[in-house]
Amino acid sequence: MNRRIRDFGYVIGKYKTGEKNKITDVPGVQVGHWTVDEGMQHTGVTVVLPGKDNAYLEKYTAAVYVHNGFGKTCGLMQVEELGTLETPVVLTNTLNVGKMADALVSYMIDETRKEGEEIFSINPVVGECNDSRINRIQNRIAGENELRTAISEAGPDFEEGNVGAGTGTVCYGLKGGIGSSSRIVRIGESSYTIGVLVQTNFGATEDLKVSGEPVGLRIKECLRQEDGYNTEDRGSIMTVVATDLPVTERQLYRIIRRCGVGIARTGSYTGHGSGEVMIGFTTANRVKAGNGNVVDSCLRLREDMLNPVFDAVAESTEEAILNSMTAAQARQGLDGRWYRSLSEFLKIRDRQESAGQR
Amino acid sequence: MNRRIRDFGYVIGKYKTGEKNKITDVPGVQVGHWTVDEGMQHTGVTVVLPGKDNAYLEKYTAAVYVHNGFGKTCGLMQVEELGTLETPVVLTNTLNVGKMADALVSYMIDETRKEGEEIFSINPVVGECNDSRINRIQNRIAGENELRTAISEAGPDFEEGNVGAGTGTVCYGLKGGIGSSSRIVRIGESSYTIGVLVQTNFGATEDLKVSGEPVGLRIKECLRQEDGYNTEDRGSIMTVVATDLPVTERQLYRIIRRCGVGIARTGSYTGHGSGEVMIGFTTANRVKAGNGNVVDSCLRLREDMLNPVFDAVAESTEEAILNSMTAAQARQGLDGRWYRSLSEFLKIRDRQESAGQR
Amino acid sequence: MNRRIRDFGYVIGKYKTGEKNKITDVPGVQVGHWTVDEGMQHTGVTVVLPGKDNAYLEKYTAAVYVHNGFGKTCGLMQVEELGTLETPVVLTNTLNVGKMADALVSYMIDETRKEGEEIFSINPVVGECNDSRINRIQNRIAGENELRTAISEAGPDFEEGNVGAGTGTVCYGLKGGIGSSSRIVRIGESSYTIGVLVQTNFGATEDLKVSGEPVGLRIKECLRQEDGYNTEDRGSIMTVVATDLPVTERQLYRIIRRCGVGIARTGSYTGHGSGEVMIGFTTANRVKAGNGNVVDSCLRLREDMLNPVFDAVAESTEEAILNSMTAAQARQGLDGRWYRSLSEFLKIRDRQESAGQR
Amino acid sequence: MNRRIRDFGYVIGKYKTGEKNKITDVPGVQVGHWTVDEGMQHTGVTVVLPGKDNAYLEKYTAAVYVHNGFGKTCGLMQVEELGTLETPVVLTNTLNVGKMADALVSYMIDETRKEGEEIFSINPVVGECNDSRINRIQNRIAGENELRTAISEAGPDFEEGNVGAGTGTVCYGLKGGIGSSSRIVRIGESSYTIGVLVQTNFGATEDLKVSGEPVGLRIKECLRQEDGYNTEDRGSIMTVVATDLPVTERQLYRIIRRCGVGIARTGSYTGHGSGEVMIGFTTANRVKAGNGNVVDSCLRLREDMLNPVFDAVAESTEEAILNSMTAAQARQGLDGRWYRSLSEFLKIRDRQESAGQR
Repeated sequence: MNRRIRDFGYVIGKYKTGEKNKITDVPGVQVGHWTVDEGMQHTGVTVVLPGKDNAYLEKYTAAVYVHNGFGKTCGLMQVEELGTLETPVVLTNTLNVGKMADALVSYMIDETRKEGEEIFSINPVVGECNDSRINRIQNRIAGENELRTAISEAGPDFEEGNVGAGTGTVCYGLKGGIGSSSRIVRIGESSYTIGVLVQTNFGATEDLKVSGEPVGLRIKECLRQEDGYNTEDRGSIMTVVATDLPVTERQLYRIIRRCGVGIARTGSYTGHGSGEVMIGFTTANRVKAGNGNVVDSCLRLREDMLNPVFDAVAESTEEAILNSMTAAQARQGLDGRWYRSLSEFLKIRDRQESAGQR
Repeated sequence: MNRRIRDFGYVIGKYKTGEKNKITDVPGVQVGHWTVDEGMQHTGVTVVLPGKDNAYLEKYTAAVYVHNGFGKTCGLMQVEELGTLETPVVLTNTLNVGKMADALVSYMIDETRKEGEEIFSINPVVGECNDSRINRIQNRIAGENELRTAISEAGPDFEEGNVGAGTGTVCYGLKGGIGSSSRIVRIGESSYTIGVLVQTNFGATEDLKVSGEPVGLRIKECLRQEDGYNTEDRGSIMTVVATDLPVTERQLYRIIRRCGVGIARTGSYTGHGSGEVMIGFTTANRVKAGNGNVVDSCLRLREDMLNPVFDAVAESTEEAILNSMTAAQARQGLDGRWYRSLSEFLKIRDRQESAGQR
Repeated sequence: MNRRIRDFGYVIGKYKTGEKNKITDVPGVQVGHWTVDEGMQHTGVTVVLPGKDNAYLEKYTAAVYVHNGFGKTCGLMQVEELGTLETPVVLTNTLNVGKMADALVSYMIDETRKEGEEIFSINPVVGECNDSRINRIQNRIAGENELRTAISEAGPDFEEGNVGAGTGTVCYGLKGGIGSSSRIVRIGESSYTIGVLVQTNFGATEDLKVSGEPVGLRIKECLRQEDGYNTEDRGSIMTVVATDLPVTERQLYRIIRRCGVGIARTGSYTGHGSGEVMIGFTTANRVKAGNGNVVDSCLRLREDMLNPVFDAVAESTEEAILNSMTAAQARQGLDGRWYRSLSEFLKIRDRQESAGQR
Repeated sequence: MNRRIRDFGYVIGKYKTGEKNKITDVPGVQVGHWTVDEGMQHTGVTVVLPGKDNAYLEKYTAAVYVHNGFGKTCGLMQVEELGTLETPVVLTNTLNVGKMADALVSYMIDETRKEGEEIFSINPVVGECNDSRINRIQNRIAGENELRTAISEAGPDFEEGNVGAGTGTVCYGLKGGIGSSSRIVRIGESSYTIGVLVQTNFGATEDLKVSGEPVGLRIKECLRQEDGYNTEDRGSIMTVVATDLPVTERQLYRIIRRCGVGIARTGSYTGHGSGEVMIGFTTANRVKAGNGNVVDSCLRLREDMLNPVFDAVAESTEEAILNSMTAAQARQGLDGRWYRSLSEFLKIRDRQESAGQR
C-alpha cells in the first residue's frame, strides 16, 4: 500500500481534497502505468487519459508552461498554438520519448479508425524525467506494447511511488516517483476539482521542506555512506494538471504557472539541469475536430475568480510531490548507492489541521 | 482630399473591402487625430476608439504581437496576460509615449468618474514611430489637451497621410503617414469586417513594392539630390487591427501575426531598427469589469475558418501601408531633405481587377 | 534606522551576503529615492542606477521576466529584443508610470547632451506597484523634478521601508516598502555579487512565511479591528536584480526567473491581480552604442555554473522582501485602516546560523 | 539533374550566392538524404549536419522560431532554454517524428561512445511536413537504418526536389521538396555565409509568386482536371538556417525570424494548418559540454550590422523555396491526382540581373 504524506499527519494547505486526493478525482480522468522494476531496468510509462472518449475527435482545451526548458518533452508547440490536447499525456524516461511518441501515434490511429476516421496528423504529448541513476536508460525498453498496457490498465484509481514513469526517479536525493493530489474549489454556486499528477526527479537533498519544515537538512545528516543524495538541484519534474473548471486556454496557462509555487514550497530553486514542464487541460470547453459549428461558445471564468484556483493548484502540487516521495520505496542505483524513501525519515505526528482549512 | 492606392488603379488582394475601406468599417470603431504640421513640429496623435462606451468598464478581447521589439510601445504586458484592452489605442511619436500614457490615464479617470466609478489602475496602450527626421522630437509637445482633441474629433471617417501620428513619418524613404483599409470576410452565413490602421515609418527605398511591382527601384533612380531616401530598412510600423469576428484572444493573436505578411508584400525585410508591433481587438466577446457573471460564455470561431481571415488581414495591411503613402504629401526634413509622396511616382493605370476577387 | 530581518535573528539561506547586504554591493550600482509621506500623498520614486556613466552610450546587458503580467511596467519589449538596458531602472506607483517614463526621457536627453550626443530614441524602463490604499494615486504627483531628486540622491547606501516607491505599498496586509539584499557567490577562482531590490505590495496576510515559519497565521489573529489586512493575494512586486557576473542576456533571464522562488518562500501564490516583473542587468558585457567594434566578444558563464547563482538569487529575493517589511513603519490607509509593520510582530530570537551556510 | 530557379533566368534578391548556392556553402555543413519513392511510399529523411565532429560534445549556438505552431517538430524547448543544438537537424514526415527522434538518440549514443563518453540525456531535433497526399504516411517506414543511411550519405553537395524529407511534399499545389540557397554577406573586413534549406509543403496554388510575378494565378488556369492543387494555404514548411556569422543565440533568433519574409515573398499568408518552424545555428561560438572553462568568451556582432543578414536570409529563403519546386518532378498522389512540377510552367527567360546586386 502507498503511504501518503497525510498518513504522517501533515495537512498541506487549506483547501479540501477530492475523494481520492488524486488527479482522477476530476470526473473522467484516468491514470495507468506500465512498470519494469528488475535487474538493470527500473523505468516505465504513466498515462493520463483526460477522458474515456477519443481526444483526437473531440479535443481538450489545454495549455503548457515551460518552467525550465532543459528537457525533452514533445508536443508542446501545437498545444501553445491551438490551445488543445488531442492525445493522452504520456510520461516516461528521457531517452524513451521518441518511442513513446511513435507508440502514441500508433495507438491513436487504431483508436480513431475504430470510429471510422483516419488520422494523418496527430500531436503526441510525451513528458519525461531522467532515471539513469537507477535505470539503464540507454536501452529505451518501452515501446508500443508497453504503452498499450499502461492505457489498458488506466482507471479512476492508481498507484503512486515506484510505478510507471516514476519507477526509477530520484527526488531530493531520495527515491522519487509518481505522486498525485487534488483540491475542491467552490466558485459561485458550484464546486470544481483540480487534480495534479507529478513525476518527481529533482531537488538537492538539503533543500527539502515538508510543509515548511527543513526536513532535508536533517535527512542529510542521517544518510549513511552507501546512500545516494543530491548535492545539486538537478533532474526534472513533470506536472500534469487536470480540472473541470470552465476556463479558457489562457486561463489554464495562468493556472499551471502556479505549480511552480508548489515546487518551491518543497524547497527547490529549480536548478539549471531540471527540466520542469507543466501540462494542463480542462474537461470543459471541448473542441470538436472538423465539422463542428462555425461559431461555438466556450466558457470563461471571471478572471478574479482564479485566485482560489491558483492557491489550490499550488498546494496540490506541493502535496503531489510529497506523496510521490512517501509512496516511493528505496531502490539501489546502478552504481550501488541506495536512494531511500522519505517515509523512513518521517515520524507520524498528530494531524495538524491547518488553521485556514476551507 | 486623400489619394488612395485604388485611385491609381491598383487593387490589392482578392477580398471585398468595407464601405469606406477603412478600419472604421468595423461597427463602432472610430478614429481621430490631433496634428501639428508647422515650423519644427510635424507630429501628432492618432486614437483608435474601439467603441463609444467606456473600454475600462467593459473591456475588449484583445491581443498583441511583437514582430520586432526595437520600440517603445507601452501597455503590451497586461494585454498578453489578461487578453483584454481597457483604453483606446493611442499612437504618437517615440519620445511622446510617456506623456500620452499619462494623458490617457487622466482621460480614463475622468470618463469613468462620469459613470460613477473611480479608477485606481488602468493600462494605457500607446504605440509610436520615430518622426525625428521631420519633427523636433525631443520637444514632446503632445499632452493631455492634444489627446482630448484627438478623441473629441474621432468619428467613423478620418483622414490619412500626414495627419496625427503620421504627420512626420517616413516610409521607404518617401513620406509616410497614417493609412487604413478593410476587408469583408464571409464565414458560414455571416459577414464580418476586418479593419487595419497603420502608422508607417519603415523600409529601404529600393525595396518598395506596389502590388508586387518593384516600384522602389524605379523611384530610387528618379530621386533628386535634395530628396531624402532610406538606404536601410529602419524606423517602425505600428499596426492596429479591429474586427467584429467572434474570436478569442488566442485566435486574435494568430490573426494579427499575419500582418507581417502584408508588410513583407510591400518589400520590407523588417530591419533591425524597426519596431513593429501589432495590436488587435474584437468588438465581440466583451468582458465586464468587476461584478459580471462568475462564468461567462465567449464566442470562438472554428479554427479552420481562420484561413480567409488570415488572408484578408494580410492584404488589408498591405493596402493600408500603400494608402498611408499615397495620401501623404511631401514634407521637408529638419536637415532640408525632401521626403516625397508616393503619388508623385505612380501613374494612374487601368483598374486591374484581381483575377481572384471574392 | 531601518530594522532588517537579520536584526531579529533570522538568517535567510546559506550564502554569504555582501558588505551592506544590499543591491549596491554590486560595484557601481547606486540607489536613490524621492519620497512624499504626508497628507493624502504617500508615494515616491526609487531609482536603481546600474553605474555612474551614461547607460545610453554604453548599454548594460539585461533581461526581463514577466512572472504575472497584470501590471503597467514599461520598456520591457526592447530589453527582450536587444538584451540591453539603456536607462536607470525607475520604480513608482501604477498611475505615475507615464510621467516617470517622460521624465526619464528628459533626464537622458540632458545627460547625453552633456557628452556631446543627441538622443532621438530612448527606452525608459519604469516599474510600478499600486499604492492606492495609502496614497491618493490619481494625483500622479511625481514628475521630472522628483525623478531628478531621486537620481541626485542616489548613492552606494540607501534606506529601506517607507521610502521612494515603497512609501505607500502594502505587503501581506502589513506595511510594505523597498527592501534589498545581496549574496556573494564563488565560481571558479572568482567571487561575484548578486543584489536584489524589491518594491513589495502583494500577498494575503495569512500566507506570510518568515524563514519558513507560518507567521502570517499568527499575525492574522493578532490584528485589531482597525487594522488593514489582505484576504487575497493581490497587489504587485517589482524585483530588480543587479550583478557583476559574466553572463549573457539569456543567462540573466534564467537567473531572474528564480526570483519567483524567493517570492514563493515568503508564502505568496502569485495572485491574479499581482503584477510581478523581474528586471535584471549585469555590469559585465557592456555594449557600446553606435561605433563599437563590428565583432565584439562577450563573456559567458559555463551553464552548469549557474546553480549557485539560481540558489543565491532566490534567497536574496526572499530576504529583500522581508527587509522591506521589517524596515517599513505602520501607516494609515486613506480609509482609516492601519497597515502595521512586520517588526511589531517579530520577537528577536537567537541568531540561527543556517546549517548549510557557505 | 536538378533544375534551379536561376536556370530559368530568375535572380532572387541582390546578394551574391555562395559557390554552390546551397546551405553547404557554410564551411563544415553537410546534407544527406534517405529516399523512398515507389509504390505507396514516397517519403524520406533529410539530415543537416552542422559539422563533422560530435555536436553533443561541442554544441552549436542555436535558436528556434515558431512562425506557426500547428506542427510536431520536437526538440525546440531545450534549444530555447540553453541556446544550443547538440544533434544534427533531421527532417522527415509528420508521423515519423517519434521514430526519427529515437533513431537520433541511438546514433548519438553510438557516436559519442566512440569518443569514450556515454550519453544519458540528449535533445534530438526533428522537423516534419505532412506528405500524406502522396505517401502512405501512417506506415512510418523510416527508422534507425534509414537515418544512418542519410547521415552516411551526407556531404558538401546534395540533391534537391523529390529527395529525402521532400519526396512526398506538395507546395502551392505543385510538387514540393527539398530546396536550398545561400548568400555571402560582407561585414566589416570579413565575408560570412548564410545558408538555408527548406522542406516545402505549403501554399495555395493561386497565391504563388515567382520573383514577384503572380505565376500561381496563371498556373491555376493551366491545370488539367487530373491535377492536384491547393485551394487553401495548408501544409507546412521547415526552414533550417546555417551560418558562420559571429552571432549569439539572441541574434540568431532575430535572423531566423526573417525567413518568414522569404516565405511571404513566394505568396503565402501562412495558413492556419501550416506548421512553420525555423531552426538556426552558427558554426561560430561553439559550447563545450562539461569541463570547459568556467568563463568563456563568445562573439557578438554589432547589432546594427544585422541588417544585411536579415535581408540576405529573407532572399535566400525565397530562393530555397523556389529551388525546391523547380527541382521537384511531378508525382501522382495516392488519390490519383498529379502534383506537377513548377518547371513545367516556367519559360526560360533572359537572365535579369537585379538592379541592386551586391
